[in-house]
Amino acid sequence: MKPQPRETIPAPTVRRLSLYLSLLEGMKAGPPQSISSRELGAQLKLTDAQVRKDFAHFGASGRPGVGYEVRDLVQRIRRTLGVDRPWNVVLVGVGNLGRALLSYDGFAARSLKIVAVFDADAARIGKTVRGHLVRAMDELESVVRTHGVKLAILAVSPASAQEAADQVVHVGVRGILNFSSTTLHAPGVAVQPVDLSAQLEQLAFQINAAAFAREEAAR
Amino acid sequence: MKPQPRETIPAPTVRRLSLYLSLLEGMKAGPPQSISSRELGAQLKLTDAQVRKDFAHFGASGRPGVGYEVRDLVQRIRRTLGVDRPWNVVLVGVGNLGRALLSYDGFAARSLKIVAVFDADAARIGKTVRGHLVRAMDELESVVRTHGVKLAILAVSPASAQEAADQVVHVGVRGILNFSSTTLHAPGVAVQPVDLSAQLEQLAFQINAAAFAREEAAR
Repeated sequence: MKPQPRETIPAPTVRRLSLYLSLLEGMKAGPPQSISSRELGAQLKLTDAQVRKDFAHFGASGRPGVGYEVRDLVQRIRRTLGVDRPWNVVLVGVGNLGRALLSYDGFAARSLKIVAVFDADAARIGKTVRGHLVRAMDELESVVRTHGVKLAILAVSPASAQEAADQVVHVGVRGILNFSSTTLHAPGVAVQPVDLSAQLEQLAFQINAAAFAREEAAR
Repeated sequence: MKPQPRETIPAPTVRRLSLYLSLLEGMKAGPPQSISSRELGAQLKLTDAQVRKDFAHFGASGRPGVGYEVRDLVQRIRRTLGVDRPWNVVLVGVGNLGRALLSYDGFAARSLKIVAVFDADAARIGKTVRGHLVRAMDELESVVRTHGVKLAILAVSPASAQEAADQVVHVGVRGILNFSSTTLHAPGVAVQPVDLSAQLEQLAFQINAAAFAREEAAR
């Protein structure tokens, strides 16, 4: 099967690719040589048909009775996502969340390297945080150019988020992981919001709805 | 319009409710008295028809030419999500990410209160982190019962995540915000995964796809 051009792969499939990758790379005893769509699906609560359809998007086809060759599958998923080569990333904001992100080892495992950290607060500039020199925002452009940075993590306050976004986009960043609960205006740039409060709200809703359904059923 | 029972509101609508709430509560100069579906939609890149449809689920209807009364709207959204009253939350894991979450002020703004923190590491137990005494896991049950805790945040390593999940579910927690990149097995419990690496991968994909589309267009 021929791989499809990237831009025609549907967004839900792209999201599942990260799940497959996480599962395959996270296998404790190391991944097996081969794995079936059924085994993969069972672990991620997907049908095997869905798994096969997802993999067909990038031209992977399993062998009947054997399944997919895992090493090949991981390589294809990484290539499709674009994480088969390293990405240099900048972090803007070294408050508590920013510091935590610098210690987070999940990024490096996926070839994402934080090459420089920035803050607008003069009291933080010039200090070293988790081995990174905190730089002033006016160094952003040269760092982004030198390291070919396309991705930025914004861990700033909601009030500063739009300004920080404007600055990183202005110097050529094409994707933003936004930890402030602000909706950013950044035309033509990919933005992934990470709103932790919103995610807790979603849980609150689900818990209430489940409790309500149980009460109804008990009547 | 009559509000619908909670469990019949579609998941995408529930996710948008958090966005509306974040927007309305985050307005700098304080929210206006009333707002139209068009204004709200414009800020969140939704059609005004979509906004009206979402709000009809919980019985809010705007006045023609005026829009929605904002205070009423915020109350209805909070009530629908279940965050019109405080939720007590426990945090498991006080590594770097856990510490950051303790300093994160976004939870309190949404009535989510971290009442106790736990860790399995004996070296951390008994210490005070950001004003919280770090407790041993065997205190989990009494804390959860005393404070009526239904929600837990897991900020533990992937290898410890399933065990921590089993422990919080066993003592009655109904929802988990999971920061490890592990897929948790927790039947009947609401789980929200927060996989930061996966979100950066999604950005990498989008940046590549956009670059590819530009190259194609330039041919």
